[in-house]
Amino acid sequence: MEETREKKLERIVQRIRSFPDFPSKGILFKDICPVLKDPEALTAVIDLFEQHVRQTYPQVELIVGLDARGFLFGPLLAQRLGVGFVLIRKKGKLPGPTQSVGYTLEYGMAEAEIQEDAIDAGQKVIIIDDLLATGGTLYAACELLKKQSAEVLGCMVLIELKDLNGAERVKPSPLFSLIQY
Amino acid sequence: MEETREKKLERIVQRIRSFPDFPSKGILFKDICPVLKDPEALTAVIDLFEQHVRQTYPQVELIVGLDARGFLFGPLLAQRLGVGFVLIRKKGKLPGPTQSVGYTLEYGMAEAEIQEDAIDAGQKVIIIDDLLATGGTLYAACELLKKQSAEVLGCMVLIELKDLNGAERVKPSPLFSLIQY
Repeated sequence: MEETREKKLERIVQRIRSFPDFPSKGILFKDICPVLKDPEALTAVIDLFEQHVRQTYPQVELIVGLDARGFLFGPLLAQRLGVGFVLIRKKGKLPGPTQSVGYTLEYGMAEAEIQEDAIDAGQKVIIIDDLLATGGTLYAACELLKKQSAEVLGCMVLIELKDLNGAERVKPSPLFSLIQY
Repeated sequence: MEETREKKLERIVQRIRSFPDFPSKGILFKDICPVLKDPEALTAVIDLFEQHVRQTYPQVELIVGLDARGFLFGPLLAQRLGVGFVLIRKKGKLPGPTQSVGYTLEYGMAEAEIQEDAIDAGQKVIIIDDLLATGGTLYAACELLKKQSAEVLGCMVLIELKDLNGAERVKPSPLFSLIQY
């Protein structure tokens, strides 16, 4: 019999570690490496993402993942759904014509980039990343996808840091998170 | 009936694009984004990796992937095999006690890092990345895993640039590549 949603979440939560003051003073870093190292916990993550997409966005055409930890989950989810995976990368990593958007991070500044031919106008996409903090990266991703005339159905993350109000920043795109702190 | 190995390779090759002079003059960049965007091509990549591991290294205990494009394939392969996935990242990205090794790139310098508790002594691992050029990153990964007393069964990449002799640099670890240029 398949595990319940609660059991799967419990399995995932047990594999998340907290490191204070990383990468800089005052940041409580959530380490997901043990989730990846436990094949059952990783399966649970993808199961729960897949279930949410099938119930809420069965029309999805592409999963878009953010550099670099969105790459850990995005291709797995895309393969489960039988759709393609598109990369949003840090500036300077993608060849050919690109579009980019600058944003502020929890700690620093950065620019997100996508290939100009990555997405056809009107394609229905879901953005995935490991963690939502202030939402800077996901906001930039939404802006990039708007530039490409994609339809962003929603954003999904494994972990949401509620106090930082990132969900507000990605509006009007709805946010789905598996675990909240 | 399942596609032949040749048919799968053909499907993958059709999805690889070349961009001259990226990211710097004289480099012919192999772009794998279209492979990720085509779910059947991505399935073919993982099928062929999985087949090689099951035939050659059935004793594998962990897949180790390199930041950032090794993250695109590593968790997929690890899930197929039912084993865990471990991250090797660029310096400064992993929390907690780490070990690091410096290396030279095709274009520049960098440092690769792993968490100290990532791997138990004697664990049998396979390293995965998207592309082998001069082999600097994979060499650093092998050195890091030696420091952790892991047993490196082999290195696997989607694309090998034969002229750059990267396979020499990762010896004695055997290299497996799906596509050679």
